[in-house]
Amino acid sequence: MIKVGIVGGTGYTGVELLRLLANHSQVEVTVITSRSEKGMRVDEMYPNLRGHYDTLAFSEPDPDTLAACDAVFFATPHGVAHALAGDLLARGTRVIDLSADFRIKDADVWAEWYGQPHGAPELLGEAVYGLPEVNREAIREARLIAVPGCYPTSVQLGLIPLLEAGLIDTSNIIADCKSAVSGAGRGAKVGSLLCEAGESMKAYGASGHRHLPEITQGLDLAAGSAVGLTFVPHLTPMIRGIHSTLYPRLMNFSGSLEDLQTLFEQRYADHPAVDVMPLGSHPETRSVRGTNMCRLALHRPGNGDTLVVLSVIDNLVKGASGQAIQNLNLMFGLDEVAGINAPAMMP
Amino acid sequence: MIKVGIVGGTGYTGVELLRLLANHSQVEVTVITSRSEKGMRVDEMYPNLRGHYDTLAFSEPDPDTLAACDAVFFATPHGVAHALAGDLLARGTRVIDLSADFRIKDADVWAEWYGQPHGAPELLGEAVYGLPEVNREAIREARLIAVPGCYPTSVQLGLIPLLEAGLIDTSNIIADCKSAVSGAGRGAKVGSLLCEAGESMKAYGASGHRHLPEITQGLDLAAGSAVGLTFVPHLTPMIRGIHSTLYPRLMNFSGSLEDLQTLFEQRYADHPAVDVMPLGSHPETRSVRGTNMCRLALHRPGNGDTLVVLSVIDNLVKGASGQAIQNLNLMFGLDEVAGINAPAMMP
Amino acid sequence: MIKVGIVGGTGYTGVELLRLLANHSQVEVTVITSRSEKGMRVDEMYPNLRGHYDTLAFSEPDPDTLAACDAVFFATPHGVAHALAGDLLARGTRVIDLSADFRIKDADVWAEWYGQPHGAPELLGEAVYGLPEVNREAIREARLIAVPGCYPTSVQLGLIPLLEAGLIDTSNIIADCKSAVSGAGRGAKVGSLLCEAGESMKAYGASGHRHLPEITQGLDLAAGSAVGLTFVPHLTPMIRGIHSTLYPRLMNFSGSLEDLQTLFEQRYADHPAVDVMPLGSHPETRSVRGTNMCRLALHRPGNGDTLVVLSVIDNLVKGASGQAIQNLNLMFGLDEVAGINAPAMMP
Amino acid sequence: MIKVGIVGGTGYTGVELLRLLANHSQVEVTVITSRSEKGMRVDEMYPNLRGHYDTLAFSEPDPDTLAACDAVFFATPHGVAHALAGDLLARGTRVIDLSADFRIKDADVWAEWYGQPHGAPELLGEAVYGLPEVNREAIREARLIAVPGCYPTSVQLGLIPLLEAGLIDTSNIIADCKSAVSGAGRGAKVGSLLCEAGESMKAYGASGHRHLPEITQGLDLAAGSAVGLTFVPHLTPMIRGIHSTLYPRLMNFSGSLEDLQTLFEQRYADHPAVDVMPLGSHPETRSVRGTNMCRLALHRPGNGDTLVVLSVIDNLVKGASGQAIQNLNLMFGLDEVAGINAPAMMP
Repeated sequence: MIKVGIVGGTGYTGVELLRLLANHSQVEVTVITSRSEKGMRVDEMYPNLRGHYDTLAFSEPDPDTLAACDAVFFATPHGVAHALAGDLLARGTRVIDLSADFRIKDADVWAEWYGQPHGAPELLGEAVYGLPEVNREAIREARLIAVPGCYPTSVQLGLIPLLEAGLIDTSNIIADCKSAVSGAGRGAKVGSLLCEAGESMKAYGASGHRHLPEITQGLDLAAGSAVGLTFVPHLTPMIRGIHSTLYPRLMNFSGSLEDLQTLFEQRYADHPAVDVMPLGSHPETRSVRGTNMCRLALHRPGNGDTLVVLSVIDNLVKGASGQAIQNLNLMFGLDEVAGINAPAMMP
Repeated sequence: MIKVGIVGGTGYTGVELLRLLANHSQVEVTVITSRSEKGMRVDEMYPNLRGHYDTLAFSEPDPDTLAACDAVFFATPHGVAHALAGDLLARGTRVIDLSADFRIKDADVWAEWYGQPHGAPELLGEAVYGLPEVNREAIREARLIAVPGCYPTSVQLGLIPLLEAGLIDTSNIIADCKSAVSGAGRGAKVGSLLCEAGESMKAYGASGHRHLPEITQGLDLAAGSAVGLTFVPHLTPMIRGIHSTLYPRLMNFSGSLEDLQTLFEQRYADHPAVDVMPLGSHPETRSVRGTNMCRLALHRPGNGDTLVVLSVIDNLVKGASGQAIQNLNLMFGLDEVAGINAPAMMP
Repeated sequence: MIKVGIVGGTGYTGVELLRLLANHSQVEVTVITSRSEKGMRVDEMYPNLRGHYDTLAFSEPDPDTLAACDAVFFATPHGVAHALAGDLLARGTRVIDLSADFRIKDADVWAEWYGQPHGAPELLGEAVYGLPEVNREAIREARLIAVPGCYPTSVQLGLIPLLEAGLIDTSNIIADCKSAVSGAGRGAKVGSLLCEAGESMKAYGASGHRHLPEITQGLDLAAGSAVGLTFVPHLTPMIRGIHSTLYPRLMNFSGSLEDLQTLFEQRYADHPAVDVMPLGSHPETRSVRGTNMCRLALHRPGNGDTLVVLSVIDNLVKGASGQAIQNLNLMFGLDEVAGINAPAMMP
Repeated sequence: MIKVGIVGGTGYTGVELLRLLANHSQVEVTVITSRSEKGMRVDEMYPNLRGHYDTLAFSEPDPDTLAACDAVFFATPHGVAHALAGDLLARGTRVIDLSADFRIKDADVWAEWYGQPHGAPELLGEAVYGLPEVNREAIREARLIAVPGCYPTSVQLGLIPLLEAGLIDTSNIIADCKSAVSGAGRGAKVGSLLCEAGESMKAYGASGHRHLPEITQGLDLAAGSAVGLTFVPHLTPMIRGIHSTLYPRLMNFSGSLEDLQTLFEQRYADHPAVDVMPLGSHPETRSVRGTNMCRLALHRPGNGDTLVVLSVIDNLVKGASGQAIQNLNLMFGLDEVAGINAPAMMP
């Protein structure tokens, strides 16, 4: 039984880890921390867990308790993993960080977007970007994982096959992304109220968003050169889900849409968390709700040069906690989708 | 491996059986029928099942194929199970009917509410009402199960302990029930459109609803006498969930609310699909979404005679497909909640 | 042109006053106060008002500016109107208070439910409870109006005809009420987040709620004696609307449902904000969304003694800001529904 | 009083015409037709209209009755206006067609996308495309108006200033559009059910959609040359609203974002139904819900060549019935926004 801890467990990614791990036969959650809720049982805060965690309660973060775990998940605001990861690694505990702390390789870029100095630049070298469809082998050997963000996961999975194959113009790609409200977290913000975010839709951060450097870092690597990306996130009135609509321009390509379909199918043939849907499909976010799956579909309107790639994930699963567990599975030699393989609920 | 068939698999209870059984390690779905969609793969109609049912397709109903199953679920409009159940039973296949065909013991009452003669009155004697919290032993031996309706499940579970103990006035109980829209099924009705049922709420059938005789039949049995029930269902703008608010009047009772809490806890101590929440709780429907759990909570406003019992279920799981599987598990000697024990997703 | 001020204009009842008064040809909003947002234009905070209030901005509350108004609305938390109303009245400005400050006639009862001493008991005598369907003549002459709460409005309008006629058992009435989330206000509370309140339903305050004494005060007056009421509010996943389902027991009544329908129709014949729908109707909350209308419908299941009264309003209009304007209209001799008579939007 | 008729009044654009015209002091609806619902009062079908249309009922379409109107709205499926418009025009009644029948100037293109021959090519010459921000003077003189589609309205208003000024690359513009479910109409389709379209998001028609030729026709006219457009519509879980996110590429432009803002403000200065929001804004669809307003905002991420134009409308108002009334107002010399100038409801 692999013993894991969760730091910062009161938010949506924390409870989602608990939900998913309740179904994971080889993992046991031994500690979960929260300063604000210490002493409260997790199933008191989250009644959906009643009957699944009969004793687990939030506790004050304690280095020794955490270090007794085989792995620790950080489901925290940025900055926290910077402060605690080094010590845990030194004591032999692996770290899977769901925050943005180790996603960006350049500490200066991180500092610019997050408005504070990077707190652990010495760990950046060994941190592995936890996108299994790109870094699976490195993840198996990693001690420190930076779990990708939700938008970055959906955008990268939709573009990487094209970039790796050198088939698109890298100077100007459009990513129009729509997120559910849970992407904003469980914090009590006016903008996330049902009465504010319900029955409405809007863009936000249209002039610049923190996920941009993470996305372009991944796209640059796949392309082997700097990619120009216009990324506009939108808030949509639903609880879970990201729908990314990607508009790459074909270049140096004389093949057919079927050829591109084959390219995608082959690229992900061996990856259980990516589903390339048949030509003509329009994936719905609900088809992946609660699951660790990314579903993709390709369209080529009017048989022109602009390709349309549709990419859907659950922002809290493949976009956060599920992907974190996928990394855990790989790090500990388990089946890659153990505990995260249930089908979505429809309706 | 228990082989099961599903008759009428294109509706919401059908796909929900498929979703839940995908997680059930001891059951295999070998046939699913649909006249209208024959030949279509189930994961083409329901992409959430992609990767879980790689070959299963809808087929024309065929008596021999169905009879080759150990058990057959009917997820059909009323009348279909009447026509087919007898033959299957005769050939040794057990029948678990999710429709209303065998729920009401009196064929005349059935005929009155459903506007047509009962099609198989000879089977009513052996049909077992599949509410495991009442009939668990009979279910273990049964060949033919009438799975309770969604409203009846939530109302009965909230009142039975009080009726069995003789603590309430049986002449006049109020059951104010709120259902999600999936209770109306996957049929294309104007009233179920997002633009009609969204952002609104209404009562329906306030002068009389088909679930009434089923509910009172169960309450009468628990009370040992005829119960007077006012039952008003409401349509609420959500996909899944039933919230029943029950208003029994205490009678012949000099104890405290804590005593009633103990009564409920003891009544359901041995029943894994019922959760009596701590005093002061207000169960949310989302805490049982996608699960086979019924959560109950008791209140006694102003310490008066009117008790308030709150009862929530997922109408498609404990109110339909999950309860059907709970029955299957009991009939075949499996763990009662095998395959239907995952925690709900929150948020 | 009647000049009005709004104290505490940043909440939902404040912006709703602005929306409705933008359509009112005889009223001008000259001042709106907010400590936290002073200096911000109202159409900056609420872009729906762009083009309708080209100069109005939130200002620090100032007694002289407010006193220059013909009437001042209080859209504030409880306690604020206690502090300011007396001075305004002394200076000849009428006060229409949307908070709970003057709704309950007994200062001790108020203090008990609100956990603080009543701040202006000397004004209770002249405060008029602003339910026009009961107090229309008194409202015309009033200087100080206590606008009824949302639940109290919907419950009282559904029961008053029966209580006045002495046709029901007053010892035990059930009011099962379902509210939209905007009833909880614009405050940033976790429980009001789209991800918490969406796709779910729950009761709250089942053991006791602040609106109870206000409701019973009104029912007692109509009945001429103390009424026993069990009131359970519920939170439903929608933005606006209250649906009250009322279960009075007929007593001393040998007539028909049609007689009761006539009773209701006659009681409200002269009241433009109440619509008694035809027998057999199930009013939807969306049919009154954005409007100052209360729609009622009567049912008598099984022709028994339990009557079912369905009552829907928009909690922010007939349950708050619209009713406040209805009072203003009456106080200033205008058409009772001037500015609040547009039909609801469907869908 | 201008007398108007509505052909095909049971759908969402029909009832929306009724709602808006109830507030229009210079227009009276004298006839509304529906074959399927003839004899039913409009306020029986749409209870929100109770008290606003006390006698109006659906009637069988009758040429003489319609010809007695000053103007007739067609809120019908395509093909119906083809059949009836000519006769009405010949008898002196003006026609405002909300369907697609006269939007596309080339009868062959129409036939290709709608799969049937154009039924009234002889009227195409005089039909005026009813986008007042482009064709206001022609509308004033018109007898036959083709009211623009919802997507086309939102896309054209966001791009026309740039195209007219020749500032963008016309070879490749991306329009990523998100629509509420009411865009699919009131027909009972499975895909529009709350349980199918709720809590989910998807693209549709990504390989080609009927609104494309209408949009490009308008863009071509503004640009003076053929425009290459990639248009992907999406279905979002809300009742009303369209959010179009447009990605034009600047070309031959050395100015600033502020210059573009000025360009937009000047272009629409005289147009009451378009609101150019301040720089930095992200318009919400709810800010125009129920109103005839289009709100626009400009962004220029990273000060690069890709511009982001955000454009929101209510698909049933500025995208259909409101714009139809805006045309009526212009045709009859009324204030352009008479009856369609109320602010949106927030929340």
